[in-house]
Amino acid sequence: MPTVTADPAVPASTVEDSPETRMRRAKEAARDTARLTSDGKVSALHAIADALVARAADVIAANGRDLARGAEQNIGDALLDRLRLDEKRVAALAAAVRDVAALPDPVGRVVGGHRMPNGVALEQVRVPFGVVGAIYEARPNVTVDIAALALQSGNAAVLRGGSAARESNTVLVGIMRDALASVGITPEAIQTVDDFGRAGATAMMHARGLIDVLVPRGSASLIETVVTESTVPVIETGAGVVHIVLDESAPLDWSRDIVVNAKVQRPSVCNAVETVLVLRAAAERVVPDVAAALIDQGVTIHGDEDIRRLVPAAVAATEEDWATEYLGLELAMRVVDDLDEALAHIRRYSTGHTESIISTDALRIERFLAEVDSAVVMANASTRFTDGGEFGFGAEVGISTQKLHARGPMGLAELTSTKWLARGAGQTRA
Amino acid sequence: MPTVTADPAVPASTVEDSPETRMRRAKEAARDTARLTSDGKVSALHAIADALVARAADVIAANGRDLARGAEQNIGDALLDRLRLDEKRVAALAAAVRDVAALPDPVGRVVGGHRMPNGVALEQVRVPFGVVGAIYEARPNVTVDIAALALQSGNAAVLRGGSAARESNTVLVGIMRDALASVGITPEAIQTVDDFGRAGATAMMHARGLIDVLVPRGSASLIETVVTESTVPVIETGAGVVHIVLDESAPLDWSRDIVVNAKVQRPSVCNAVETVLVLRAAAERVVPDVAAALIDQGVTIHGDEDIRRLVPAAVAATEEDWATEYLGLELAMRVVDDLDEALAHIRRYSTGHTESIISTDALRIERFLAEVDSAVVMANASTRFTDGGEFGFGAEVGISTQKLHARGPMGLAELTSTKWLARGAGQTRA
Repeated sequence: MPTVTADPAVPASTVEDSPETRMRRAKEAARDTARLTSDGKVSALHAIADALVARAADVIAANGRDLARGAEQNIGDALLDRLRLDEKRVAALAAAVRDVAALPDPVGRVVGGHRMPNGVALEQVRVPFGVVGAIYEARPNVTVDIAALALQSGNAAVLRGGSAARESNTVLVGIMRDALASVGITPEAIQTVDDFGRAGATAMMHARGLIDVLVPRGSASLIETVVTESTVPVIETGAGVVHIVLDESAPLDWSRDIVVNAKVQRPSVCNAVETVLVLRAAAERVVPDVAAALIDQGVTIHGDEDIRRLVPAAVAATEEDWATEYLGLELAMRVVDDLDEALAHIRRYSTGHTESIISTDALRIERFLAEVDSAVVMANASTRFTDGGEFGFGAEVGISTQKLHARGPMGLAELTSTKWLARGAGQTRA
Repeated sequence: MPTVTADPAVPASTVEDSPETRMRRAKEAARDTARLTSDGKVSALHAIADALVARAADVIAANGRDLARGAEQNIGDALLDRLRLDEKRVAALAAAVRDVAALPDPVGRVVGGHRMPNGVALEQVRVPFGVVGAIYEARPNVTVDIAALALQSGNAAVLRGGSAARESNTVLVGIMRDALASVGITPEAIQTVDDFGRAGATAMMHARGLIDVLVPRGSASLIETVVTESTVPVIETGAGVVHIVLDESAPLDWSRDIVVNAKVQRPSVCNAVETVLVLRAAAERVVPDVAAALIDQGVTIHGDEDIRRLVPAAVAATEEDWATEYLGLELAMRVVDDLDEALAHIRRYSTGHTESIISTDALRIERFLAEVDSAVVMANASTRFTDGGEFGFGAEVGISTQKLHARGPMGLAELTSTKWLARGAGQTRA
């Protein structure tokens, strides 16, 4: 392996500085990160974690300025909470980087191969993508998560965070770049285009040849924009209109516990349930208790007429509710005649993230698992389990709701591609 | 498994007939094809193969009309050859369908899984994409190839072939749809939008939610258009500015045999070599013989000054030649100072398809294999081996030159996605 040496840091503002020049530097740096040994990557990530802890005060100060601006602009408590970095959260960020460093290196793994009849030896090996781009919103932890995951999988990263977290992100990227340089790796492997505003995101979406894969993380509208506008390959993540179906055989305690857990344990994330479909034969038996437990936790229920007969506190659901990702303490609830109607509702409104059925009927469970076309299909478990950490992948890049390349929670291997190596001794094709 | 029944064929022209309605029918049919058993798929493919043979005369007659129109329009001998279907080629098409039927069914294969610490059983299984779209040019065999591959991987197919092959494609699609109906599978699983002209292709490229993955096959400009315009996920295939590097240790016989084979054996395809880079230390020893063998086969050599000193018959190469996919009996040839310069040339001009080095130096071979960022990187073998058949995948969907989802020759598994199944017993997240 050649030694990778740090380039002198390029001054932040020169005349020719542009999103393109930064992406070009990332592309060049990617040739070096692709050849880092596992040991080299681990030392880089530990240097980043150490630097985050050592410079936590800088991060918190910059974050304070973001928070103050956010409060002035009334961005709301939920967003402010996602934006906030205190000492504990910075420590958690550093710990997450160390967790990534502990994950097995996917690069170089032989995933297939055989000898052709003529003797040519074929081998399919994991290789980094090259440059991973991320476009995301208010959470500054994504800045560090994506950079660490990209690096451990041998990639360079180009980051575009939301303007709400701009000062936090600038400091975090600076810390990570300094940490790379301190262990002899070019800091150009981590780039931000935050300071170019929307033009930075636009440049990334059209950077064919410079960015190998683009991961949008955030609201449905952000993801939609990136998917529609981008000419670079995109891994679509996240939006979750998640359903739970209460079958006629659904045990009451599982129904109540799973629905409450899936809605309330962390309502602001994509794997939280948004719609509960109850089979008519179970409605009278389960709906009053499930609804009472939800209301007890402060959840507003948007119900159809059948639900409202059983739950007087429910407000009337409109067509729009079935397609809504509330990301808060609200839930849509509907009675369906049978499993066919539940499956048809899911086909129509699901975003293909996660659906779960609560049932003890083996045939109906298997039908649900087979027919629902979502990244994760569950029986008798909380939809909150759709998560890279819970699935055992360490930190996660996002949850893919598309079918190409990766589906469901993505780990390190999903940030790599493969290439075929062929070793011959003069063979030609007949 | 539910029985899949054939819908009555929908009349070809009704008032509301449009690319959208056909894609919608494919999407509905995909729910049925996804649940076909392996036995069901095999019998469908054999019915298609039998029907192609039985109705070969219809195919050849329609193809004759396409050929006559093509000749009138002077589309050229190479295109006419790609377009031509005679009895032998129809038989080969049918045989290719039977070969696909003999491939292992990828659907339902468990590719991963484990039990979560809380007892939830996780299983990752292969599932069809749903609807595979293909946009391609003059070769009518692609119509049958893609439909067969889509079906064997549980998908429905929406096809858009080139206008040059329109009559052939119409008959081929009709035969395949009839064959599906004859074994009780909905014919809506195979759709063409050829009769809508460009509007059909445009509709496919924007059919998010109806087409799950789009595969363009054909010229670089067709692929570029689809990649740039499409909002549906695309698997980029094909364009090949393919390089062979003759190292200073390159044996003369391997150099000559491999370069000639890679250029001449079938010049019109993407894995044919387009540029040969010769290390200066080998140039005098190998260039005259390699060039003579090429010229003997009718190849025009576009050389830089160093090449032209050694090969008087060579014409002067321009900057444009290094980026050209000739797809014919032409070849660009350049002398480079060392392996670094060869690698830099490849970084600049390669389309990431296939590159090969001819060398006996182990360190230099390994450096080439590690540093060249292409789908297939070879040592001492003809680039013509980059092919699904040669790689043992049976018929191929195309050769992916991108890094997402699939890279290199694609087989049946590349036409599937995965989903996660989670089976619990009331677990909630702490």
